[in-house]
Amino acid sequence: MHKILVICGSVRPTRICPEVARWVMDRLPPGAPLALELTDLADWPLPLDGEPGIPARDGYTRPLTHAWSRTVVAAAGYVLVTPQYNWGYPAALKNVLDHLYREWAGKPAMIVSYGMRGGGKAAAQLREVLDGLHMRPTATMPALTLPAAMKTGAAFDIATGPFDALADTVAQAFAELAALLAPTA
Amino acid sequence: MHKILVICGSVRPTRICPEVARWVMDRLPPGAPLALELTDLADWPLPLDGEPGIPARDGYTRPLTHAWSRTVVAAAGYVLVTPQYNWGYPAALKNVLDHLYREWAGKPAMIVSYGMRGGGKAAAQLREVLDGLHMRPTATMPALTLPAAMKTGAAFDIATGPFDALADTVAQAFAELAALLAPTA
Repeated sequence: MHKILVICGSVRPTRICPEVARWVMDRLPPGAPLALELTDLADWPLPLDGEPGIPARDGYTRPLTHAWSRTVVAAAGYVLVTPQYNWGYPAALKNVLDHLYREWAGKPAMIVSYGMRGGGKAAAQLREVLDGLHMRPTATMPALTLPAAMKTGAAFDIATGPFDALADTVAQAFAELAALLAPTA
Repeated sequence: MHKILVICGSVRPTRICPEVARWVMDRLPPGAPLALELTDLADWPLPLDGEPGIPARDGYTRPLTHAWSRTVVAAAGYVLVTPQYNWGYPAALKNVLDHLYREWAGKPAMIVSYGMRGGGKAAAQLREVLDGLHMRPTATMPALTLPAAMKTGAAFDIATGPFDALADTVAQAFAELAALLAPTA
């Protein structure tokens, strides 16, 4: 089994990210050799100005950065579940990516975005960042469209099945993630 | 005179952003109707999880967010001076943009990036975010290339004139910023 960190990109107190992430995790195809582990960035309060040096060149100074480094190294791959903020990725997600460098290199990753229009612009920007980190993103990037009623304040309710039409797409992305981890003969 | 906030996008303790920003500010063409004011994000520690609501829809809860809102509203335009981190914009810069929404709408902005290759990828992502915020970015986006010796740890020294070849490009961007602020007859 390959250990996969599922990283929730939002730390906003009213976020729906953990719920979205759990729905994504439930779409893992039976028998896939992936052990998913939900990672809440609220548990990783890495300060924006926490490290003086450049991760690609210098060492780390804070115990929390070292702990985050060990956590990321211990995973074989990642699922990044992210909302779209103003056509881009959230600062909270970029912050934990930028805190490290070598730890990400060569690792496969699957991006799942959500937003009123699916968050595809944020996913595209995030994919470029993963390329900059020398990661291997899956070709399929599920973009989950939120119910239109949320725009005027309606609560999010996963029980109404808002993303059901994308279930096969998410399963396909998981299959690609597993394939990227398979040993090449 | 139009008040322009010059926002330094990096809060890393060893950052060169304020020095780069001051060099940029010194390129303001004489007589341009712009009053530049350097804004250090280290003075605006807006927490990543500081506001529960969605800026476009809900109010703010923290005094610091209200103060940031007033500061942004009081400016006619912005110069964003940003390093490139892993082909994207820094979390610190995205964080202060995402904390507000209506305050940015319709305002002109000039993006100046810097990096080992000029930081053009970060500038392009940032421009997309400004579009998402309904801002009006200048057409010219100066991309300042850092001296190659910095890659192996050499100190940055603005006195050696690393960006001199781009001085006219920065002046051109300032002219465009002023033009975007001019009243239409």
